[in-house]
Amino acid sequence: MKIFKSKQKLQKEILYEKNISFVPTMGSLHKGHEFLIKKSKKIGGKTLVTIFVNPKQFNKKSDYNNYPRNIKNDLILLKRLKVNFVYIPNKREIFSFKPNKSVFLDKVSKKLCGQFRKGHFEGVLDVVNRFLEILNPKRIYLGKKDFQQLYLIKKHIQKRKIKTKVIACKTIREINGVACSSRNKRLNKKQLRIASQVYKFLFKIKKKSKLNLNILKRKILRFGVNKIDYLEIYNVESFRKGLKLNTNTNIFVSYHLGKVRLIDNI
Amino acid sequence: MKIFKSKQKLQKEILYEKNISFVPTMGSLHKGHEFLIKKSKKIGGKTLVTIFVNPKQFNKKSDYNNYPRNIKNDLILLKRLKVNFVYIPNKREIFSFKPNKSVFLDKVSKKLCGQFRKGHFEGVLDVVNRFLEILNPKRIYLGKKDFQQLYLIKKHIQKRKIKTKVIACKTIREINGVACSSRNKRLNKKQLRIASQVYKFLFKIKKKSKLNLNILKRKILRFGVNKIDYLEIYNVESFRKGLKLNTNTNIFVSYHLGKVRLIDNI
Repeated sequence: MKIFKSKQKLQKEILYEKNISFVPTMGSLHKGHEFLIKKSKKIGGKTLVTIFVNPKQFNKKSDYNNYPRNIKNDLILLKRLKVNFVYIPNKREIFSFKPNKSVFLDKVSKKLCGQFRKGHFEGVLDVVNRFLEILNPKRIYLGKKDFQQLYLIKKHIQKRKIKTKVIACKTIREINGVACSSRNKRLNKKQLRIASQVYKFLFKIKKKSKLNLNILKRKILRFGVNKIDYLEIYNVESFRKGLKLNTNTNIFVSYHLGKVRLIDNI
Repeated sequence: MKIFKSKQKLQKEILYEKNISFVPTMGSLHKGHEFLIKKSKKIGGKTLVTIFVNPKQFNKKSDYNNYPRNIKNDLILLKRLKVNFVYIPNKREIFSFKPNKSVFLDKVSKKLCGQFRKGHFEGVLDVVNRFLEILNPKRIYLGKKDFQQLYLIKKHIQKRKIKTKVIACKTIREINGVACSSRNKRLNKKQLRIASQVYKFLFKIKKKSKLNLNILKRKILRFGVNKIDYLEIYNVESFRKGLKLNTNTNIFVSYHLGKVRLIDNI
């Protein structure tokens, strides 16, 4: 496993690599990342993981500062998974150049998380656009937990005619059903139990019948959730709002436990 | 998913099932169990999971009493994994009949864990023998974390000419490298950190050179481990002791953190 902190050295190394699988991360790796990496290892070629806590995608400075970081553990995991290249850039390296392509920001960015985290998706797309230009990967691996992000990155790649293929991977869950997330590390035992209750509740919702989302919200609040940003049904292809759950729709939720904001879609 | 507490009802249900994958568990399910079940689902047929904390395989009553139990969470996971049958027997149902076949106890049962947990493998094989007779599964799924147990069950099945095929599955690890185990739930944060250090230390050991196990033990104790039952190299096929690590040998370890005894092999 080769670790790079310098863009120049990395680019020299991968200049002739035509089959790179790119797994972007903000570090503090979990089972979801592990799955993305394992998937990428199966397809052959080389796996390149980036660790970069992108300040531009945090709408709150405190959230950026409190985001869990553990590079030492991350590197041990990446080594165990036999990752080929790890790139750990600093902010300057990423933001000091002008990308050739501009960011395409689909209007879906205004929905769901876009309403509650101003500038978040702009920040995500900006950094992904930069990484794609630096790395020119054959594939990018993204998780379906961040479904809206996945959708917007797909749109950007499509509209800007970038040749990288998006590989969307299923959400990996803890045994208690909670979607794996670096933010889970900030939850205490009681909060984890509540998050598990929320998952179980949403998992059990009957398909096909029209749902009263306000009643569902009230029930979730009763579990001990501090605040619900949204609980909505969306079609996963058109990203239009729905009223019923069926094979083409997911229920999207974002809620707060203490100072931690969690998202999921089921 | 059908849940059975009665052997009679279960046997009636599976009488004509010729393609059952059997995943034996003591409940308190973790990612290792999840992997076994997912593997079994992939192969087709029906997956049958048993949840039974077998008193006969605990050499200490306190260990049996403190073994983590959480049937409610277990059932939610099993439902999510689309398991077909769950069998949760009581002790009487399992132990009140005389099995047709006797247990074959290979002499490997005297090594490693056998030295430190008197009667443990006798208890394991007794209950597995009984379950195999009740369920007559096509396949049984076992994890390599409990390598000695896997070896002994294989030997028993072979010697007693039982038709069930043993599917040995890789050890699933937490992100910090610690092998998944229900006992991990009893560790506090500091103990988890020590367990992770032990894994990382053993993972980094160079292959091919002769190892001084006493020096390694002393290093591990310095991490904060309370006691090491054993640290040995064994050939994974012949189960003969070795001195060097190579592709046919694993390093086997058992150690104590507080009141919790952990095992691993790498």
